[in-house]
Amino acid sequence: MKQTTKMRGKQSVEFANPPYILGRSSVAGTKEGEGPLGTYFDYIEEDPYFGADTWEEAESNLQKKAAQLALQNSGYKPEEIRYLVAGDLLGQLIATSFGLMELKIPFFGVYGACSTMGESLSLAAMLVDGGFADHVMALTSSHFCGAEKQFRFPLQYGNQRPLAATWTVTGSGAVILGRKPEKKQAAKDSSKEKSWQSGKCNCDPFVLIKGVTTGKIVDFGVKDSMNMGACMAPAAADVIYHNLRDFNRQPDYYDRIVTGDLGYVGQNILFDILNEKGYHIEKQHMDCGIEIYCDEMQDTHSGGSGCGCSAITLTGYILEKMHRREWNRILFVPTGALLSPVSFNEGDSVPGIAHAVILETEEECE
Amino acid sequence: MKQTTKMRGKQSVEFANPPYILGRSSVAGTKEGEGPLGTYFDYIEEDPYFGADTWEEAESNLQKKAAQLALQNSGYKPEEIRYLVAGDLLGQLIATSFGLMELKIPFFGVYGACSTMGESLSLAAMLVDGGFADHVMALTSSHFCGAEKQFRFPLQYGNQRPLAATWTVTGSGAVILGRKPEKKQAAKDSSKEKSWQSGKCNCDPFVLIKGVTTGKIVDFGVKDSMNMGACMAPAAADVIYHNLRDFNRQPDYYDRIVTGDLGYVGQNILFDILNEKGYHIEKQHMDCGIEIYCDEMQDTHSGGSGCGCSAITLTGYILEKMHRREWNRILFVPTGALLSPVSFNEGDSVPGIAHAVILETEEECE
Repeated sequence: MKQTTKMRGKQSVEFANPPYILGRSSVAGTKEGEGPLGTYFDYIEEDPYFGADTWEEAESNLQKKAAQLALQNSGYKPEEIRYLVAGDLLGQLIATSFGLMELKIPFFGVYGACSTMGESLSLAAMLVDGGFADHVMALTSSHFCGAEKQFRFPLQYGNQRPLAATWTVTGSGAVILGRKPEKKQAAKDSSKEKSWQSGKCNCDPFVLIKGVTTGKIVDFGVKDSMNMGACMAPAAADVIYHNLRDFNRQPDYYDRIVTGDLGYVGQNILFDILNEKGYHIEKQHMDCGIEIYCDEMQDTHSGGSGCGCSAITLTGYILEKMHRREWNRILFVPTGALLSPVSFNEGDSVPGIAHAVILETEEECE
Repeated sequence: MKQTTKMRGKQSVEFANPPYILGRSSVAGTKEGEGPLGTYFDYIEEDPYFGADTWEEAESNLQKKAAQLALQNSGYKPEEIRYLVAGDLLGQLIATSFGLMELKIPFFGVYGACSTMGESLSLAAMLVDGGFADHVMALTSSHFCGAEKQFRFPLQYGNQRPLAATWTVTGSGAVILGRKPEKKQAAKDSSKEKSWQSGKCNCDPFVLIKGVTTGKIVDFGVKDSMNMGACMAPAAADVIYHNLRDFNRQPDYYDRIVTGDLGYVGQNILFDILNEKGYHIEKQHMDCGIEIYCDEMQDTHSGGSGCGCSAITLTGYILEKMHRREWNRILFVPTGALLSPVSFNEGDSVPGIAHAVILETEEECE
């Protein structure tokens, strides 16, 4: 197959004009605010209903807030954003359609379960690099109560949670991508100020998306919706393996290889599969689901999950570390369990998918 | 806002290297097979369960068949397809994830309700034009029984259907896009033979995607899920209006302007809105939902609907007419109602979305 210079190996792309992250936001619930990453989030809402009457509308309001903050941080208006690439966990993406319609931005709805931030960032980056847009917003969310209602049990039922279960993050993260700004100050990302204050570097580097590796659906036949780490780990291993192969890299090229929500159970499976393939990522690996809560204090068992988990860990924590130049190269790999209440009740397995996004800081401080 | 040569107006793109349609397939159920377009479909399955035990699995099998036929018609193998952009109406896209995972193609799951074929074709075309892929498959489906179960009433209940209601099409359509083939015979689309036989033109032109106009979510506050034409018509009018504006065209540029599933009720609303804006598309307009069934004979009321409706009308009927050069310029506008059983039961409105795809035959016969 004849390939352009952008295609790498079997399933990766290296951008000719890597898109810049020009704005970002992280909106979280109280439980996430009380967790280890709490101080990194832009906004923590104390009302679990976010001022709404239903959990679905609450999640819509969560998205609305994240979109507003990202716009505010970037200095762009909604009409300057050419596409919105977004989705959520709810059937027919209702949190997104009702949450973001007021923005009146041409909209691509995407569904990748908890890998959605990886999918939306990948497509958004392609839209910018391909010359189809100046600015694109990628956004996703999840809400604990909406997800429990949709996928598990009514909250009122108070069911016991096995130790392999994860806790759906209430949160929404948004990123605005665009071409290299002509003037740096054009991007008024408030995070810049923070990085100036940190004192570790007196530049405030932009973060670029250098490439992506798009995942396939991988099904190892696991049927336990309370053990989603096991369902998703094979997909994460597959996409990390192909990223390293396609770019001919070793894991230590990256400061961190960050999976979405494998949790403690899934992490071990990920290591086992990659070890068998000859890759050892133990030193670089970090899982958003493990970072976002403190199990001992917060009783969250195997960790956090949901589209919002990797989204706010990225927009709140990871990008902040990169703006401070503590990390310069990140492989961001949100992971999704392709499960529906219907397929689960019909006895189907839970296939997984994961999408990898290569994030790097600008090499030179201008 | 600085724009590349690809961007047109506020929400359109004109491709620098328009992607070619290299393969296509249409798989339908018996009711669709008995309708006015029946003879155009590649394959009609008599078993509504498509050999499965559940309606969801039936829809997965429908998609599998459509993907296989499109591959067969194009002459490509699954491993030559770099991305799969697909989705369906079911919560968490389970028809797609279970139907297509065996293909092992990097996967972007999309949700645009019944506008999904427009969304998947738009993104697939951008992936090819942007240099990210040689070949991409865009696919979608719907199944009457799965959709009734998901959105309306159990079939066994035998509810009465109001005259504004549409009938969800059981069908799946797939398109394989790619760059201009070096040798024409490389694309072994079986439809070529048909066009030779038609005798109207002794070339067998390829159909290209020249551009796209991406829709916004439009909500006129209609709450009746049994009158989806009214919910979607404003979104269709908006995207058609922007397409004509962005490209500075009059409706007669197109041989047909084809909406997805507005039905008889939605069609009138579409005309009214566009007339108010000074555009008259009555002569060019065609609606897949109106074409696919014969209401008098088939008791389908306002027409067909579902992702499969516009998908198989495109892949079976419209592209065949284009290969025969009976039509050379088509604006294909699948329309979606962003409705979920949860949002409907919570009393929310039904917002609409529509995506426009410009299809043109090769200008010169080589």
